[in-house]
Amino acid sequence: MPSRVLITGARGFLGRPTAATLARRGFEVHAVTSGQPEPSAPVQWHRTDLLSPADVDALVADVEPTHLLHLAWHMAHGGVYGAVENVHWAEASLGLLRAFHRHGGRRAVLVGSCAEYDWTHDGPLDERAGPIRPASIYGQAKDGLRRLAMAHASACDLSLAWARIFFVFGPGEPPGRLVASVVRSLLAGAEAPCSHGRQVRDYLYVDDVAEALAALIATEVEGVVNVASGEGLPLRALVDEVARQLDGRDRVRYGAIAVSPDEAPRVVAAAKRLREEVGYVPTVDLASGVARTIDWWRAQRDGDA
Amino acid sequence: MPSRVLITGARGFLGRPTAATLARRGFEVHAVTSGQPEPSAPVQWHRTDLLSPADVDALVADVEPTHLLHLAWHMAHGGVYGAVENVHWAEASLGLLRAFHRHGGRRAVLVGSCAEYDWTHDGPLDERAGPIRPASIYGQAKDGLRRLAMAHASACDLSLAWARIFFVFGPGEPPGRLVASVVRSLLAGAEAPCSHGRQVRDYLYVDDVAEALAALIATEVEGVVNVASGEGLPLRALVDEVARQLDGRDRVRYGAIAVSPDEAPRVVAAAKRLREEVGYVPTVDLASGVARTIDWWRAQRDGDA
Repeated sequence: MPSRVLITGARGFLGRPTAATLARRGFEVHAVTSGQPEPSAPVQWHRTDLLSPADVDALVADVEPTHLLHLAWHMAHGGVYGAVENVHWAEASLGLLRAFHRHGGRRAVLVGSCAEYDWTHDGPLDERAGPIRPASIYGQAKDGLRRLAMAHASACDLSLAWARIFFVFGPGEPPGRLVASVVRSLLAGAEAPCSHGRQVRDYLYVDDVAEALAALIATEVEGVVNVASGEGLPLRALVDEVARQLDGRDRVRYGAIAVSPDEAPRVVAAAKRLREEVGYVPTVDLASGVARTIDWWRAQRDGDA
Repeated sequence: MPSRVLITGARGFLGRPTAATLARRGFEVHAVTSGQPEPSAPVQWHRTDLLSPADVDALVADVEPTHLLHLAWHMAHGGVYGAVENVHWAEASLGLLRAFHRHGGRRAVLVGSCAEYDWTHDGPLDERAGPIRPASIYGQAKDGLRRLAMAHASACDLSLAWARIFFVFGPGEPPGRLVASVVRSLLAGAEAPCSHGRQVRDYLYVDDVAEALAALIATEVEGVVNVASGEGLPLRALVDEVARQLDGRDRVRYGAIAVSPDEAPRVVAAAKRLREEVGYVPTVDLASGVARTIDWWRAQRDGDA
């Protein structure tokens, strides 16, 4: 039997490269979107409203996937972290997992977030030790979903991993986020307002996230796996690399954006499980990732012009 | 506007006395059961399958409750702690909460369990300090539901408390549980096999739980509230009281039932929130609770004969 994967959120920032990676790895890829599918062989597209249980059941009954990689989530601009839609997506995600199992699915990867952790914790954020203390409704909804999904999986003998994704940059990033906004400002010849930039975060280039997710779903590793580099990157180092490549160092305005006094100084993962149990080691270094991201935004701009 | 409460699980061990208590406190009580309603003024009965979202929506639209006290849960005998139905009930509970809010509800109490806590913890189990570490699918499902329900409530400005119930005995207890089984055995003139009985638990008489739930829903206290005495009772003291009242001390066989070596020696709540914030102090002492329980089982037996 071929491995047939259903991937949701397949037109999103993470979903697009992940669907392509899964196809390259030999999966028969069925991609779900609520919007207009973009025909792109070898992916087969399905247009489905994941918030409709009847539609979800019909989709899963039709595709009969052996694998599920569920990336879709409420991502409307503004208020995403506080919106009740996060809870609706948790409910819809459980319903999807249940339909997947009911129609014979056996291996699922759901996607969580570093927002589940306690960001005031000093030291690496570890899958087993935590600590877990989501500060937003978004984080709470992911945290609650994870617990119910794990309970469901252990009651049903379903193989389930929870990919806890940290910070990601690359082509297709929502334009308001750090790397996208600095690249676009500097490409446009404008100034790039930034915060002080001393926050340390754990970043991966988006293709490394896609490869890690594809590697994870192909294993039987269960439970939480941080999808992260395991290394702390000061935001200033990231922005400086963008500025260096765009010759815009003098247009970066550190300190122009105020930062809350309780902004976490450091959010960095323990990434041992990903490396040792899943066997995935990120391959794209900072300079290459930034270069590819700049190329992509430049192509967008030139395409738009 | 009168306070109109919808109570689920209303024919159950906890639900029956709680529905009566709510009516006595002046609520207009709408009681839900999936089975045959038992007409019992002043409670209005509704027959609804809570696992059907359409039925739940129709019920809530019809009743338009201002208050929700949700006790119903998967309670089939055998395997309740490990069954996937626990996750289905978590999903159904979220759907009910959502429907309640959508139709104008403003104050809800959902019911959790001491099974959410880490029973290896030394010292009182506290609402804020935890520690939380459910050992069963049942506890995991309750824990996950609580987090999603809390996220939903904070996103929607719904007033929500989570009543974390410990150990309960009294009339209507499922017959296989400790007090019910010892009472029935001794009433029948038989021996009562028990474990060693040195485990310490936090017990309330069922009417005290009903009064505590009714008191809690009438407040605006939010978050987790342990519904418990705050005092440790060795199981042997409980069984000895039953045996004393039934003159059956010589028929209790301590040690006849083997206990897992990792059975928790002590599961006792911190009950300060219930006493100080909700203002409820349990009123039924052990001897009275046991006496009423024995009377009830005697009436059942005589009714059956």
